[in-house]
Amino acid sequence: MGNAQYKLYYFGFKFRAEVIRLIFEAAGKPYEDIRFEQSKWPEYKSMAPFGTAPFLQVTSGSQTLCLGESVAIARYLARKFKLAGKSDEEAAIVDMYGDHITDLMNAMVRLFSEKDEQKKKQDQEKFDNETLPKHLKNLEERIIQSRSGFVAPSGLTWVDLYLFNFLDLQGDKAQTLFNNFPNIKKLDEKVRSNPKIAQYLKRRPVTPF
Amino acid sequence: MGNAQYKLYYFGFKFRAEVIRLIFEAAGKPYEDIRFEQSKWPEYKSMAPFGTAPFLQVTSGSQTLCLGESVAIARYLARKFKLAGKSDEEAAIVDMYGDHITDLMNAMVRLFSEKDEQKKKQDQEKFDNETLPKHLKNLEERIIQSRSGFVAPSGLTWVDLYLFNFLDLQGDKAQTLFNNFPNIKKLDEKVRSNPKIAQYLKRRPVTPF
Repeated sequence: MGNAQYKLYYFGFKFRAEVIRLIFEAAGKPYEDIRFEQSKWPEYKSMAPFGTAPFLQVTSGSQTLCLGESVAIARYLARKFKLAGKSDEEAAIVDMYGDHITDLMNAMVRLFSEKDEQKKKQDQEKFDNETLPKHLKNLEERIIQSRSGFVAPSGLTWVDLYLFNFLDLQGDKAQTLFNNFPNIKKLDEKVRSNPKIAQYLKRRPVTPF
Repeated sequence: MGNAQYKLYYFGFKFRAEVIRLIFEAAGKPYEDIRFEQSKWPEYKSMAPFGTAPFLQVTSGSQTLCLGESVAIARYLARKFKLAGKSDEEAAIVDMYGDHITDLMNAMVRLFSEKDEQKKKQDQEKFDNETLPKHLKNLEERIIQSRSGFVAPSGLTWVDLYLFNFLDLQGDKAQTLFNNFPNIKKLDEKVRSNPKIAQYLKRRPVTPF
């Protein structure tokens, strides 16, 4: 679908939609960033492919495609906008580390929704002391190996933006992570200082997550 | 990487690796299917990109690529073997439903590893009565909409094989699901009767999961 127009629908925060916004921004592609209040969700829910947000409407001429699942949307746009890796092999590596970050995002959601306080505490400890350092260590090693400062040898791809957003969601904890993983810290700085991303970060709404 | 040689490493059961095996089989591409005993895992673990199985070694000339994360491997091979959808838009739809099935697979793992019997029972009920029917209803509607009997309008893709394997893992419960979702049942039959898949199903080792 050439000359497509994009409408992204999500709540007024970063969480699952932010990687998609960052892809549009890094690629310099226009999109409508529709941020709605929680109270408007029932209205939008009926438009969402699986009744979940974010979702993306792609319109080209008389054709409209409606996509759900944030990472599927991210991969689709990344491929369109040349942010998916330079070869099938690079795209596969990028995907593989993308799945890593999805694991971390899903773990965050489960922690957030756990009702049992004792279980929540245990799970949080496991996340902080096992899951998170293990996954970040893999990413740190990958960045060293790729020699570009990013996950892919050829440069910036969507997975760097996905990692950047994940770190951003960690708030105050990110600093400790940066101290332990200097190459992840450098990647974060590289993403942050990308001119298009830097511009976006200046104007995007400030939200806690 | 043209003329590549593939080695797939996994335990001697279906679970996360089977979608990869089914992609090789449906595409008629040769691969080495290395099934190891649990006791051999420490030996193989050091070869695995993230210390997890399945993993895939792709060798082409002097180059070797080692990939982890089953769904990233599936998407990579599907793209190579023309089982990823005919356009970027089809590939995105296929991906989106693939993420659905991954959600179900992950929920199965969490159920399996839950130690607290009461929590396990509650979670199983939620899975059986909410998560599973909701996701399958989406897939059922998608198959109707695509008119091909598969998820993608153009025909068989990796997500059909992924769904087929998920249903296969349900054992006796699959029959009830088929009664509720006639188009998923027909898709299952179409996959099963694909000549290459049918041949493979005859010769593959019989394992409980």
